[in-house]
Amino acid sequence: MKLATIRLGDRSAAVRITGDTAVETGFGDVGELLRAGGLAEAASAEGAAHDAANADYAPVVPRPGKIVCVGLNYRNHILEMGRELPEYPTLFTKYPEALIGARDEIRLPPESDQADWEGELAVVIGRTVRRASAAEAEAAIAGYSVLNDVTMRDYQYRTTQWFQGKAWENSTPFGPVMVTPGELPSDARLVTSLDGTELQRTPIDDLVFGPVQLVEYISTIFTLRPGDVIATGTPGGVGHARTPRQYLGKGQTLTTTIDGIGSLVNVAAPERA
Amino acid sequence: MKLATIRLGDRSAAVRITGDTAVETGFGDVGELLRAGGLAEAASAEGAAHDAANADYAPVVPRPGKIVCVGLNYRNHILEMGRELPEYPTLFTKYPEALIGARDEIRLPPESDQADWEGELAVVIGRTVRRASAAEAEAAIAGYSVLNDVTMRDYQYRTTQWFQGKAWENSTPFGPVMVTPGELPSDARLVTSLDGTELQRTPIDDLVFGPVQLVEYISTIFTLRPGDVIATGTPGGVGHARTPRQYLGKGQTLTTTIDGIGSLVNVAAPERA
Repeated sequence: MKLATIRLGDRSAAVRITGDTAVETGFGDVGELLRAGGLAEAASAEGAAHDAANADYAPVVPRPGKIVCVGLNYRNHILEMGRELPEYPTLFTKYPEALIGARDEIRLPPESDQADWEGELAVVIGRTVRRASAAEAEAAIAGYSVLNDVTMRDYQYRTTQWFQGKAWENSTPFGPVMVTPGELPSDARLVTSLDGTELQRTPIDDLVFGPVQLVEYISTIFTLRPGDVIATGTPGGVGHARTPRQYLGKGQTLTTTIDGIGSLVNVAAPERA
Repeated sequence: MKLATIRLGDRSAAVRITGDTAVETGFGDVGELLRAGGLAEAASAEGAAHDAANADYAPVVPRPGKIVCVGLNYRNHILEMGRELPEYPTLFTKYPEALIGARDEIRLPPESDQADWEGELAVVIGRTVRRASAAEAEAAIAGYSVLNDVTMRDYQYRTTQWFQGKAWENSTPFGPVMVTPGELPSDARLVTSLDGTELQRTPIDDLVFGPVQLVEYISTIFTLRPGDVIATGTPGGVGHARTPRQYLGKGQTLTTTIDGIGSLVNVAAPERA
């Protein structure tokens, strides 16, 4: 099943995408649906139908209670950099103010000139878990989505803690849909492109800490709840690590795709401060 | 005015503390009060009265939308360590799952044996602001409270990013009250004690980045909203920097006091995992 949150004038709706059609499920967004335990209900809902191709996608979970991000988590990228594989996941966060929909503009703030891409697989939580076993962690994953952890590198490196480069308002596309676990191919690839030029490509099974391990690890520290999101980290190919360095410029189109889920297609546009 | 959130059986209430009395304001908690713009209403509310001394205090804002924490922010501590004053604030976060009330037990997780104290002044936001000027930032501060950013040092230093040491469930006392800005003495001191032995003492005006500057800086990155919290950083005297190192042990009482606001008094107790 594919679920999305679409904007309909002054309201939003959680929809089930079936072919070209987006069918309303009766929930206001996918976060509300998950918190209500509404996956089974959504599978059979027959609400108003909309054209999925022309829908206005909100962030698939518009206001997650928590967005936990993982750094340094692709094996090939770590090894090609000559580093050792990490013993523990590196965790940081962003807040919902950063999220935008799958076709929304990425806002380039006037304070930064180093906006960079980080295409990622996102895990969406469907059950409340603390200190989850592997089986509980797997059962707690409602589905998967695509997220681009767009980062202002100058702010990221102002101090030792990355958060201030990661949390810029309206910078982080998330969607277009969440697919339930059975719909994510095990050989799915994550591809990030800028104006059609491929920048990042990786099989998602190259993660050092996979989705189940991350749910186990993070839920040791605190309770994960329905609608919480884990952004699992980015592979090699970010602009800051290129020679010469390359950043997201105004008017450029950033495309982030995972097989079986879909694509984020976002134009970078200056923010009017 | 002093406001608190108290637990009353299966509900909570935002109360105004007047002498020994906690008067209900009609709001369910101080976060709800702030989001409703209810400060003036709270000042004159005459709801049910409770004994303030024996009240069961919840975190003063039980579920802030954002909790932004600041590191390395006391001038005397930085200079005594031989470091230069920072050009930018170091920012990281925690989530509401970490918060506990002013008399609740701090849960020591079995996974860590390095729980440490970090007494801090907390700023509570009362207005929605983005890219606040100094005047707007000052007007956006609803009040001040006390927070102890209890940190599991072993987890903090597992990776470069501190978040996983800062976010443990039920670790962070916050309260007992929020005082409106006029009630915080300019010469207020922050004092942290363990079983009556003083560990940290500092005048709060020794902050490198004060509350107004922090609201300006953070709101450049994203919108701050009513009920959001900024924990402004801790002075010298943490256990991890002592010789020999010292951590919070089971049964010990951690007391965190700021003049004009009040005290957090929290016993550390093992968590049953």
